[in-house]
Amino acid sequence: MAQNTRIVLDNRPTSEATPGNFKLETVETPSLKDGEVLVRHHYLSLDPYMRGRMNDAKSYAAPQPLGEVMIGGTVGEVVESRHPRFAPGDAVVGMGGWQQYSVVDATQPGALRKVETTHVPLSHYLGAVGMPGVTAWYGLVKIIDPKPGQTVTVSAASGAVGSAVGALAKARGCRVVGIAGGPDKCAYVKDELGFDDCIDYREHKDYLSLAKALKQACPHGIDGHFENVGGMVLDAVMLRTNAFSRIAVCGMIAGYDGQPLPMANPALILVNRMRVEGFIVSEHMEIWPEALTELGQLVGSGRFRPRETVAQGIESAPEAFIGLLKGRNFGKQLVKLV
Amino acid sequence: MAQNTRIVLDNRPTSEATPGNFKLETVETPSLKDGEVLVRHHYLSLDPYMRGRMNDAKSYAAPQPLGEVMIGGTVGEVVESRHPRFAPGDAVVGMGGWQQYSVVDATQPGALRKVETTHVPLSHYLGAVGMPGVTAWYGLVKIIDPKPGQTVTVSAASGAVGSAVGALAKARGCRVVGIAGGPDKCAYVKDELGFDDCIDYREHKDYLSLAKALKQACPHGIDGHFENVGGMVLDAVMLRTNAFSRIAVCGMIAGYDGQPLPMANPALILVNRMRVEGFIVSEHMEIWPEALTELGQLVGSGRFRPRETVAQGIESAPEAFIGLLKGRNFGKQLVKLV
Repeated sequence: MAQNTRIVLDNRPTSEATPGNFKLETVETPSLKDGEVLVRHHYLSLDPYMRGRMNDAKSYAAPQPLGEVMIGGTVGEVVESRHPRFAPGDAVVGMGGWQQYSVVDATQPGALRKVETTHVPLSHYLGAVGMPGVTAWYGLVKIIDPKPGQTVTVSAASGAVGSAVGALAKARGCRVVGIAGGPDKCAYVKDELGFDDCIDYREHKDYLSLAKALKQACPHGIDGHFENVGGMVLDAVMLRTNAFSRIAVCGMIAGYDGQPLPMANPALILVNRMRVEGFIVSEHMEIWPEALTELGQLVGSGRFRPRETVAQGIESAPEAFIGLLKGRNFGKQLVKLV
Repeated sequence: MAQNTRIVLDNRPTSEATPGNFKLETVETPSLKDGEVLVRHHYLSLDPYMRGRMNDAKSYAAPQPLGEVMIGGTVGEVVESRHPRFAPGDAVVGMGGWQQYSVVDATQPGALRKVETTHVPLSHYLGAVGMPGVTAWYGLVKIIDPKPGQTVTVSAASGAVGSAVGALAKARGCRVVGIAGGPDKCAYVKDELGFDDCIDYREHKDYLSLAKALKQACPHGIDGHFENVGGMVLDAVMLRTNAFSRIAVCGMIAGYDGQPLPMANPALILVNRMRVEGFIVSEHMEIWPEALTELGQLVGSGRFRPRETVAQGIESAPEAFIGLLKGRNFGKQLVKLV
């Protein structure tokens, strides 16, 4: 048993998410039943998908219930175990939520996964070698499927998913061009992540202007695009796509008032014989082992070490999450809990 | 040699196509060289893609050159041959254009194809057992790939492509719902073509209203959609798609002023993990034999005999074409030339 400070969803946002939507509370962890494991979380992952769960709208996933601990990926160490495959001290990854401890039914397949921390720092199992990395892998490998020499673009390029798309596409011999917000992120994408180029969308007032910049950065057109954002970025990219190009749709923002944001020129799907495909990585568990192996090698060898933005303490999670939604983070947003 | 009356593109439309864009002229057919065949056309096919060729805009196909015979599919009979595989009287399909006769270099692969007319009436080689039918086959079989019991929708359902989509989907055990303009076309789609239901989009003032009608006609949602139109129909269909649905994009209209028509809610591609794919059937020649075999059996056995609208005489082609663009035809639009 342990004192566990946690954050529950108190009420749903009416437009933007605010700290007032969350509530902090402290409880005792329950005593373990057979097959259960008590995990002390070292890091909590904050991800854009959580914003969608805060709404009560029909989507691919059920809404986050009010009064319950916010959903979230966690890494940590086993402190107590009543399951034969887990022992105190084991480093583990799971979906522990926005809290310091979790009690996990380790008999459920995939609920808790042991990881090695000799080559890969623990926190990266929430980013490059975790769900964001596998998301990048699925969209790039299974939908875009780029050939060496082709040009791949990715929006939100400095983020946890976007940076992994770039690393995986470079490893396949592609020209990789990122799109990000602000000069600092663009410099990071080019200088640290090793993209061939990066365009600051904030310098462009509309999608036609952004499309001109893409033409310069992608002189042979765009063969594949990984979309984390939608809206103006997607419209601009579509204008520069080559015949038989593929767009993997991983994220799509709504307009400011929550209304759907239209696609400017869907006829390009026909003109350029494009394939536009949406996906959710949790529906493709069969590719996780292959994806994690490649991502683990990229990170373990030091070829890919994306930056992390780390907030300190469970109570900082709401503000850090809102900052993530506003693009204030740099690379993977984490909360350190120890 | 023969007197050949033909229609050339005289000037390009500034907005809508008009009869004044075309010019009628009569010339002598040239004498044949080795390998050439003189074909007398019985029927000319009129198809929506021709409107795109009349513009001087970048698209997947080169523009129709001014002063040259309008492009178009034709069926007819060989009247003179200097190629060993063709003899006078042979029934043939080719791209003879808007004219009474054509001289074809039969040494070019695919330029001229002999067809049997015992089971399949000659004119159907321009429709159900021709390019429109193969277009339907590719989009349905290769992109939508429906399973028995799934629901497939198709826009412009009474047209040459749409009717074939319906016949092929019914043959695969699907529920098939058409969308067409006007009560006569909807009655034809249901009563003669055998669709399970058909919705008259003209009864709906916006896509939300049309989506309500689709909900009634598709109680289990939409698993696959064949898009010949775009705009309001596509927006309505997307609202009713199931998870992992597929949309084959075969046609997309522009707005009245030629500006692109937006897609209202592209986020549904992600929410419903859709695949939206554009295609042009001429880029997939490898599937033509398989497709034509199935379509020939459907038409030859009488299970599928779509209606034709037949204009008489080459001089009627421009008005018939403009009528086609305005949806005045019923089923496949042909011009009878003999």
